Amino acid sequence: MTERLTLSIDAMGGDNAPQMIIEGIEASLAHLSGTKFLLFGDESKLVPLLEKHSLAATVSEIRHTKDVVTNEEKVGIALRSGRNSSMRLAIDAVGSGEASGVISAGNTGALMAMAKFVLKTLPGIDRPAIAAYYPTLRGESVMLDLGANVDCDADNLVQFAVMGEVFARNVLGLKNPSIGILNVGAENLKGNEAVKKAALILQETPLPIKFYGFVEGDDIGAGTVDVVVTDGFTGNIALKTAEGTANMFGTFLKQALLGSLMSKIGALFAHKALKEFKMRVDPRRYNGAMFLGLNGICIKSHGGADAIGFANAIHVAIELIENSFNEGIKEDYAKLSNSASHKKKAVGEE
Amino acid sequence: MTERLTLSIDAMGGDNAPQMIIEGIEASLAHLSGTKFLLFGDESKLVPLLEKHSLAATVSEIRHTKDVVTNEEKVGIALRSGRNSSMRLAIDAVGSGEASGVISAGNTGALMAMAKFVLKTLPGIDRPAIAAYYPTLRGESVMLDLGANVDCDADNLVQFAVMGEVFARNVLGLKNPSIGILNVGAENLKGNEAVKKAALILQETPLPIKFYGFVEGDDIGAGTVDVVVTDGFTGNIALKTAEGTANMFGTFLKQALLGSLMSKIGALFAHKALKEFKMRVDPRRYNGAMFLGLNGICIKSHGGADAIGFANAIHVAIELIENSFNEGIKEDYAKLSNSASHKKKAVGEE
Repeated sequence: MTERLTLSIDAMGGDNAPQMIIEGIEASLAHLSGTKFLLFGDESKLVPLLEKHSLAATVSEIRHTKDVVTNEEKVGIALRSGRNSSMRLAIDAVGSGEASGVISAGNTGALMAMAKFVLKTLPGIDRPAIAAYYPTLRGESVMLDLGANVDCDADNLVQFAVMGEVFARNVLGLKNPSIGILNVGAENLKGNEAVKKAALILQETPLPIKFYGFVEGDDIGAGTVDVVVTDGFTGNIALKTAEGTANMFGTFLKQALLGSLMSKIGALFAHKALKEFKMRVDPRRYNGAMFLGLNGICIKSHGGADAIGFANAIHVAIELIENSFNEGIKEDYAKLSNSASHKKKAVGEE
Repeated sequence: MTERLTLSIDAMGGDNAPQMIIEGIEASLAHLSGTKFLLFGDESKLVPLLEKHSLAATVSEIRHTKDVVTNEEKVGIALRSGRNSSMRLAIDAVGSGEASGVISAGNTGALMAMAKFVLKTLPGIDRPAIAAYYPTLRGESVMLDLGANVDCDADNLVQFAVMGEVFARNVLGLKNPSIGILNVGAENLKGNEAVKKAALILQETPLPIKFYGFVEGDDIGAGTVDVVVTDGFTGNIALKTAEGTANMFGTFLKQALLGSLMSKIGALFAHKALKEFKMRVDPRRYNGAMFLGLNGICIKSHGGADAIGFANAIHVAIELIENSFNEGIKEDYAKLSNSASHKKKAVGEE
């Protein structure tokens, strides 16, 4: 018998919680076995939902609490007075070792602050980053930071690069993933001080990182590199710009295809192809932003996610746990500090 | 008889120069009358091209020079040793008043540096910005800065807002255009120091600017505001991310429609609709980035533009000139300095 993997769920976070959460768990079970869920939230709402979703009910355990962190709640207040909230208790379950990972579709800032407070960061990591997959012409890539750190220095960017590399290797299963730093041009002279200095450090790192150099905004969709590293300000804006552009494209396409009888007939013939196209860029497939760099797995689902989106966030959590993402980071930083002490010794011997 | 408008052209800048330039002028003439072109470049290449394009020939005058600024040229070197280059001489023609605007598809950094050196900035403007139109769900909007200034403070952002507002009013013809600052969230507390301070200044400006507040990346495609203000680092990456996403979408759609016989038949029926859709997001329609804030009109065409793209850049130049863009900026800053001296007086009277 394999060991059961336990996930703790903030059952009250998100626009359509707790309904979409229970439906998401139910949907995820088609591809899962042996996963157990701890549901933190209001049992008066959760019990009737579980009665309707018998699969989810068999693998879920309710941990009752009335408190919730709202989306409007300031981070500081959530930290101080949210100790019995569904979000905080779900994180605590990872802190205590009862669960291997936590998922919430609630307030992003509060989730990051609480997770940092409870779980702490991994050795070598100053600041956790938000990472996500996205579709590219070449397949899938990962980008970080997507908004956890508005101001980043070169060291932060380098840490993001190390985490992104481990993610691409351990979770995406790439042998030698390439890393790029997002910039306004490919030349060495371009960009702000942080990206220029980070590039210099990555060119000389003792870790076996395949550093591609600078990439530009259009390289994101092209899939030029497997990991795009950027500060949280630029990364958040780039990700949302891509979402907005995709949405605009989809709307324009729909308008065009509904514009005449001929185009409607065409859309009917191409129905299957258009459906496949839509699925390929379906944002729900990419739901589940990963808080990387914490001493525990923490996944943020989009607040407006539906059941399919939330089920995807569950799969992302399981992938990180099963592929020992955090162990990979620890190994890399152990190597780095070994190499640093070797270097010091070598210098001392001179 | 109306006065003839003269444009000076860096005929050697761009991947396919000078051929696409002459073809672009020829193409632009379908919608133009009374515009004259000064072509700066190698006459041994320009003469044979003009012989083949009789319309362009009748409105063009060659100003021979052998020197060119390459794309690889460092900005400092271009400034010092490019005094006889086609780019520099084309800018000089605006500086001397011989031409009303200049267009180049060459090295962006060199063009900006030379234009700043020759034309200087408008009163009130510390740093020029690069601006461009883009398609949105609501129509067209304008975004700046797109890469001229990697690091921006609050004052720079406020100046971009003033220029963007004048542009939207004078050139896009909007009565009361809305201005937003690109940020990682809509709340006042979000973002870096520059955007927070710029928002405070814009909330209290004596100019009749309709300041919407912060917008996010997905608001760009949604067209939430008429003018999106951002620093050159973020703006450049956002614009190129949108281009890359659009390209990915187009490729995925093509692949889907070519995937089966049924979908091919569908695409045939929907041919006209798909063509219209493609035209609506054709990047060539948005070619012609504007260097705003200079004491003279300067337009940068994409280096890889074709004739249709270059013709569009010509139209952008003419729109800025005919709609008195620079006069609008001067008026706004005159108002601002009046209001500042009134304020001082009022304070002094207390």
